[in-house]
Amino acid sequence: MSNYIKLGVAAMLIALPQTGGAQEAGTTPLNADIGFIFTTFMFLVSGFLVFFMAAGFAMLEAGLVRGKNVAMQLTKNVALFSLASLFYYILGYNLMYPGDGWTIANILGEFSITGLEPVGLDGADPDLTYASVGSDFFFQLMFCAATASIVSGALAERIKLWPFLVFVVLLTAVIYPIQASWKWGGGFLDGMGFQDFAGSTVVHSVGGWAALTGAIILGPRLGKYKNGKVNPFPGSNLALATLGTFILWLGWFGFNGGSQLYMDTAGNVADISRIFSNTNTAAAAGAFAALALTQVMYKKPDLTMILNGALAGLVSITAEPLTPTLVEATLIGGVGGVIVVFAVPMLDRMKIDDVVGAIPVHLFAGIWGTLAVVFTNDAASLLTQLYSIIIVGLFVCGASAIVWLALKYTVGLRVNEESEINGLDMAELGMEAYPEFTPA
Amino acid sequence: MSNYIKLGVAAMLIALPQTGGAQEAGTTPLNADIGFIFTTFMFLVSGFLVFFMAAGFAMLEAGLVRGKNVAMQLTKNVALFSLASLFYYILGYNLMYPGDGWTIANILGEFSITGLEPVGLDGADPDLTYASVGSDFFFQLMFCAATASIVSGALAERIKLWPFLVFVVLLTAVIYPIQASWKWGGGFLDGMGFQDFAGSTVVHSVGGWAALTGAIILGPRLGKYKNGKVNPFPGSNLALATLGTFILWLGWFGFNGGSQLYMDTAGNVADISRIFSNTNTAAAAGAFAALALTQVMYKKPDLTMILNGALAGLVSITAEPLTPTLVEATLIGGVGGVIVVFAVPMLDRMKIDDVVGAIPVHLFAGIWGTLAVVFTNDAASLLTQLYSIIIVGLFVCGASAIVWLALKYTVGLRVNEESEINGLDMAELGMEAYPEFTPA
Amino acid sequence: MSNYIKLGVAAMLIALPQTGGAQEAGTTPLNADIGFIFTTFMFLVSGFLVFFMAAGFAMLEAGLVRGKNVAMQLTKNVALFSLASLFYYILGYNLMYPGDGWTIANILGEFSITGLEPVGLDGADPDLTYASVGSDFFFQLMFCAATASIVSGALAERIKLWPFLVFVVLLTAVIYPIQASWKWGGGFLDGMGFQDFAGSTVVHSVGGWAALTGAIILGPRLGKYKNGKVNPFPGSNLALATLGTFILWLGWFGFNGGSQLYMDTAGNVADISRIFSNTNTAAAAGAFAALALTQVMYKKPDLTMILNGALAGLVSITAEPLTPTLVEATLIGGVGGVIVVFAVPMLDRMKIDDVVGAIPVHLFAGIWGTLAVVFTNDAASLLTQLYSIIIVGLFVCGASAIVWLALKYTVGLRVNEESEINGLDMAELGMEAYPEFTPA
Repeated sequence: MSNYIKLGVAAMLIALPQTGGAQEAGTTPLNADIGFIFTTFMFLVSGFLVFFMAAGFAMLEAGLVRGKNVAMQLTKNVALFSLASLFYYILGYNLMYPGDGWTIANILGEFSITGLEPVGLDGADPDLTYASVGSDFFFQLMFCAATASIVSGALAERIKLWPFLVFVVLLTAVIYPIQASWKWGGGFLDGMGFQDFAGSTVVHSVGGWAALTGAIILGPRLGKYKNGKVNPFPGSNLALATLGTFILWLGWFGFNGGSQLYMDTAGNVADISRIFSNTNTAAAAGAFAALALTQVMYKKPDLTMILNGALAGLVSITAEPLTPTLVEATLIGGVGGVIVVFAVPMLDRMKIDDVVGAIPVHLFAGIWGTLAVVFTNDAASLLTQLYSIIIVGLFVCGASAIVWLALKYTVGLRVNEESEINGLDMAELGMEAYPEFTPA
Repeated sequence: MSNYIKLGVAAMLIALPQTGGAQEAGTTPLNADIGFIFTTFMFLVSGFLVFFMAAGFAMLEAGLVRGKNVAMQLTKNVALFSLASLFYYILGYNLMYPGDGWTIANILGEFSITGLEPVGLDGADPDLTYASVGSDFFFQLMFCAATASIVSGALAERIKLWPFLVFVVLLTAVIYPIQASWKWGGGFLDGMGFQDFAGSTVVHSVGGWAALTGAIILGPRLGKYKNGKVNPFPGSNLALATLGTFILWLGWFGFNGGSQLYMDTAGNVADISRIFSNTNTAAAAGAFAALALTQVMYKKPDLTMILNGALAGLVSITAEPLTPTLVEATLIGGVGGVIVVFAVPMLDRMKIDDVVGAIPVHLFAGIWGTLAVVFTNDAASLLTQLYSIIIVGLFVCGASAIVWLALKYTVGLRVNEESEINGLDMAELGMEAYPEFTPA
Repeated sequence: MSNYIKLGVAAMLIALPQTGGAQEAGTTPLNADIGFIFTTFMFLVSGFLVFFMAAGFAMLEAGLVRGKNVAMQLTKNVALFSLASLFYYILGYNLMYPGDGWTIANILGEFSITGLEPVGLDGADPDLTYASVGSDFFFQLMFCAATASIVSGALAERIKLWPFLVFVVLLTAVIYPIQASWKWGGGFLDGMGFQDFAGSTVVHSVGGWAALTGAIILGPRLGKYKNGKVNPFPGSNLALATLGTFILWLGWFGFNGGSQLYMDTAGNVADISRIFSNTNTAAAAGAFAALALTQVMYKKPDLTMILNGALAGLVSITAEPLTPTLVEATLIGGVGGVIVVFAVPMLDRMKIDDVVGAIPVHLFAGIWGTLAVVFTNDAASLLTQLYSIIIVGLFVCGASAIVWLALKYTVGLRVNEESEINGLDMAELGMEAYPEFTPA
């Protein structure tokens, strides 16, 4: 009889965690299996949204390059995503999450490629308080791939395909995972209290630094800066660029929302709702800031600035999409939009040729977003944020420069002049994106 | 010992609600936290689908305007979504859900902008029987933005950017929320028994009335109606228009499905499945009806009619996507497609120039859908449906007319003739959407 | 008092199934209602992803046909999806899932169109161990529609609209459901142990066989094979084709992931994670294989081959996306990419004109994927896989040939020469997809 009673108590202990009175709703953990399903499914949904950002980057970049380079830009985007998908599981994922015993010896001696949990979790010992390894891998992979996408836009219209892809492999297999481990793998930046919720620094500035280093080493497109003047090379298809921006905006709900990492309690799902709302608000504010500012400064709104303004708003809120109020999200995102409007011509004055505006959007707004965390999150220290930005920047610039320079002085980074003038599509691919439409 | 027993009973009381024998499956409420997570996540997923409709509208409209106005149409779509996102949280959301004590005094004295629940629901008293405030806000915002998107298509190719955006602000911050509160905020139309599940009237007809009022006040495009003839101005990119239609179709699963408002029981999720199936069926029927009808009437199918037929099918089922059978959904959606085929030339005969067919799709099919509720939902009364359609129509037309006329006689609504002839892209933006492709 | 104790035990029995210690996590069933909600919602999310593949096919095909046939290709894609949506509920769904008592007598005497569970499951007896009928129908419909989409691409640029649509009706209402019932309806191939997780054979090869039969009966486009030479007809818009590929890739997560059919345990959701990861890896490997191979063989990478390589990777993993490791998924998908690069010119040498490469992608890679199951799934037998491929192929080729030939010798399958030369858009629709852009 006492056994029955004990069972009753056991039942209570199991069932109680799910009760959740209102005042404790946010923190009550659910039954482990249910929480595991919720969080895992959340990662899968967030992951496919971030996956779709690959299409967003491809459309944005295809729309902002000239018609003669569109097929090549599309090729680069499909190829970079594919390579990231392969090399992140071969090397990157386990490099990024070294666990407790991460040492060089481990890497050399014990490193293994990514293995998922067995079918049906059969015989496995899953972490039921978190999510399946497969969903975590899927989600994290998409962040790594996004980092590489940032680079392709900035260096468009002149970089050779294969050297670019070699860089992508090193970026996604080694450079990104190592620095990401410092924060998200429980490394020293995390230990110092560095706050970067979804990667204004870890993802966006990293892509931005790699792009900046590459743009400097590669040099500007022929004719871009001539006789002291900046020649505009208008994008060939602003409808595609707008579509790409909307797709990126959509994907960002997964990017920031999924970075909550848990959906196993009422509090966690409510937090994801906050993140969705703040993310959308910051994007809107960035777009509107760029619209208003270009109207005031140039008397005409500039659509590409508006698109980049939205993206800069998104990057800005990425370091801390949870704690801001909607008004704070508006300000953080709005400043992002302002940064873009000023930074694009500034880069041009410095003769750094960034075809799609990736450096202002991902690097400058990424730095701003990382610093802005201190306004809304008490756990953040301005010094630690600054220090982390600088450390990550130095590492990525250094590592990238070595790779870019090694490529430059061996196989060469840049197509020849004739190819660049005729367009990479005919020169390197022998095909055109729009073969029937006569260039003006 | 009796304590143990009481605990056992308590465990049972907590656990029992989840048991759900088959015969009562539809109505058994789940444990509160679990239901809250399900419903909140459902709002977030539905919300990002409806968000993506902003891209759908942008592509549809960019595809249906002439090449010289594409960049402007894209600009308007990004800008209107951004402004809706900002003004709906500043004003619209709390205006739409006034709660019990809604009075003018409240608005003036106690109105506050939208505030989300605290991080982690810490110290909050969430409604665990529903969803997080953030998810509800996110979902509702997207409906408000969709309403504004409807207007932009109808008035394309001649309205000035900034006056249009001023209208968008007033529509999303004031006009839409006030009338939406009458039904969805628990107002007098809701009290009368008005049935509008996902907004054939509250969203689509409202966008349609605002567009109709604007189109009349603005007047047709130059040369559209000349010497008694209707000149077709073919859309510049039917691939984009088709893409936009598919994106809208996709988004509609969130639009209608999310309007179930709960996913915390087997019955609710089964209802969402009915809604998905009916929504898809109505769209298919609308598209096929337009295909068959244009084949019969004009001997050639008309792709833009087919696209608008699909959209009209979607609008038609939106007032009641739950109760119809698949056959009824076919009929409701099919009539929507028929309406479009007849209404588009009818508007042209009245010299009301609706560039993308937004008025037939959203207003006429919206009225049809609202009336058709009486065929499948016993709770609906034809008189109440009619009365509500008229009341909402009068309010929106009146309020819109005041705004449109005020803008017309102050800053002016319309670009000058030269700008219209040369295209808004070069005239108002100084850029082109497809700069390299020579117009024929 | 003993009553209290019994209640305590009852509570335990209810609560226990949710506890899931680590070692049994994968198999512990959840409370029925919760599992039903999880699985149903999973079908809805997967279903809308697969729905979006309709847009993916439309964009891929619109991008790969010549400009003069784009509007027609878009029309066909919208129309085929609409017809599939209607005829699958009228006939296909219940034909595909005959249940226990499926006989010809049943079909004639007792067949009924698809009916969903009542609103709120009121009075229903739902299968709480599975999902709602509506969600299952919605998900399965999308597979049927995808099968028809495969056909439209191969036969583009010369087939008449209405005969094509008649074929679509018969394919989606009869041919697809009958053969699908053999495996997924619990028919004889399933009884034999045939393994086809998400339809490399049941969906992709079926579309491929129907396309192959049609392509042979229809004959090649005018001028495609002339004087012993294969004339390339480059696609008009590779940006759209790339977008379509990314959309298909996205949709495939729902296609393969949803085919797990359950998300009611930790084991099932972890399996869906494996499937997502493997699906993505196979696509990446297929794309990269095609990139590398075209570089080696032709010295220039071929973007359309890369896109089709990704799709072939996806088709290849579809028969078994669960059991492979990431490395195995890489190999399976990579071989798919290789197949495409060799099969496209092979078909051309046989003068079988497949406009978009649908036959290599869906049929050849589908066969490969079905056979490759034996490498990673012990339950599969090579002979049974081969036998099933052949049986399905014979049935689909036979049934398709009858329909194609009947159409050819009655209403005719092919537009006349003048229409084909001028383009189907002007000839059959009287409109152009890009009216302002001069063909070169």
